[in-house]
Amino acid sequence: MTGAPTILVNGVPTAAVNALDRGLAYGDGLFRTVRIDGGRPLFWERHIAHLDEGCRRLGIAAADPAALASEAASLFGDGGDGVLKIVVTRGVGGRGYRPPEAPAPTRMLARFPMPPAPAGCGVRVRLCATRMAIQPATAGIKTLNRLDQVLARAEWSDAGIFEGLMRDSEGFVVGGTMSNLFLVHGHRLLTPIVDRAGIAGTMRAAAIDAARTSGIDVVEARLAPSALVQADEAFVTNSIIGAVPVGDLCGRALAVGPITRRLRRALAAAGEESRRAAPWPMR
Amino acid sequence: MTGAPTILVNGVPTAAVNALDRGLAYGDGLFRTVRIDGGRPLFWERHIAHLDEGCRRLGIAAADPAALASEAASLFGDGGDGVLKIVVTRGVGGRGYRPPEAPAPTRMLARFPMPPAPAGCGVRVRLCATRMAIQPATAGIKTLNRLDQVLARAEWSDAGIFEGLMRDSEGFVVGGTMSNLFLVHGHRLLTPIVDRAGIAGTMRAAAIDAARTSGIDVVEARLAPSALVQADEAFVTNSIIGAVPVGDLCGRALAVGPITRRLRRALAAAGEESRRAAPWPMR
Repeated sequence: MTGAPTILVNGVPTAAVNALDRGLAYGDGLFRTVRIDGGRPLFWERHIAHLDEGCRRLGIAAADPAALASEAASLFGDGGDGVLKIVVTRGVGGRGYRPPEAPAPTRMLARFPMPPAPAGCGVRVRLCATRMAIQPATAGIKTLNRLDQVLARAEWSDAGIFEGLMRDSEGFVVGGTMSNLFLVHGHRLLTPIVDRAGIAGTMRAAAIDAARTSGIDVVEARLAPSALVQADEAFVTNSIIGAVPVGDLCGRALAVGPITRRLRRALAAAGEESRRAAPWPMR
Repeated sequence: MTGAPTILVNGVPTAAVNALDRGLAYGDGLFRTVRIDGGRPLFWERHIAHLDEGCRRLGIAAADPAALASEAASLFGDGGDGVLKIVVTRGVGGRGYRPPEAPAPTRMLARFPMPPAPAGCGVRVRLCATRMAIQPATAGIKTLNRLDQVLARAEWSDAGIFEGLMRDSEGFVVGGTMSNLFLVHGHRLLTPIVDRAGIAGTMRAAAIDAARTSGIDVVEARLAPSALVQADEAFVTNSIIGAVPVGDLCGRALAVGPITRRLRRALAAAGEESRRAAPWPMR
């Protein structure tokens, strides 16, 4: 990566954004994190679709997919691995919450190194005290309003704890600070519904599809904490880590079970297929 | 203002912030807007105290009050009127919600022109459909997570409507998108309690103090929408507009009543007193 730009703002290599961007002023925007393996993205089409959906929900013009693809490809022109972060904001504005009449959205792409891979034999997951606010207007989409997650993640510093689960203000389990949660109850896969809080992650969608393709019944539901106690298996997902088995679910030891193993294989295959099909410019 | 810097980031005149600032990434910070009359601020000490309280709640190191004062004074060195916006974020970070071990907070001060003064004979206020999320962890403080307000403010474009009231997700009235709400019921002043949602504005605090000093009973309470219907008078407050009488409260006509008039006078006097006492460098 030496010498190559690691951040592009509206296509221009830079380390700065306009100080009056509404992304900074109000968190008025969205982001995605995309895993890049060997210079090519996993689940690119899903990420773009999720980004578009987020823009539509906030009333921000969708980013040009061709610009996103060519800028992302240029950041990973060395064919390396890493994390691509895409931020789209409503753009520069003056003072006041009211969106500008004709906003010009800001598009920022940044390259980060891959984090260390979590243990495949099962990670430790705790329960956070900080609750996720219920807000159907922005539930499911990955907005730049992420203080709930920041405060929850600040609750622990033990490096042995991989993730913290969050409940909504009514006490239902919504997911992790940076991941979606899946529980295996018998032959069924349960995951929190994200219609009031939480994020409908790209890997969550891929996991649901992979499970259904494999003939596994998937239920999106409001999960009481008691659902954690009844789980036979558990795993957490996000775009960077894929599906990671939980070995310690809030103090309860769990083995890596057959459904988790099957879905990990299925997701790895789906990821690789999406990587080959990615519509990035060939080099 | 011509030629003078209008934005200072950590004391340096600039139009840009670091693209990896956590204020942009997660809305991980706070802001204030301060009214400046003739080069001097109104309610400066209250603003600094509120900013400190917000920093404490988010676990961000408090900004140096001397730096804030001298930078603010330099932005208004021409002795003019305007709006001073102060933004404090947790600072630059990498990827991931976890706050950095030793973050260096970002301090941004910006000068904006004063908006047109609202009609003193009573403004029109509507009821928004967008709800405010309930989140005790950040309720009361003015974080950079303001999408609820952005979406609510995007509901109307009629320039004749000054403000929109917002209810929390349980239906209680919390305040306006950019202001606090006060209702007069008989001899009592009611204002929504902001322990679960909403912002404890500086002018709200000044209005409560002014009312109590004047012998008016003030009650902070969870207000059902029916409280709007029972109001004899109403006004909205923020640091820039002061206390503005409501003439049309969600379709109900209200006269500018005696308690509103009395508090407007008291707040104007308190603002002027604070302006004279402001600890800004003398020129």
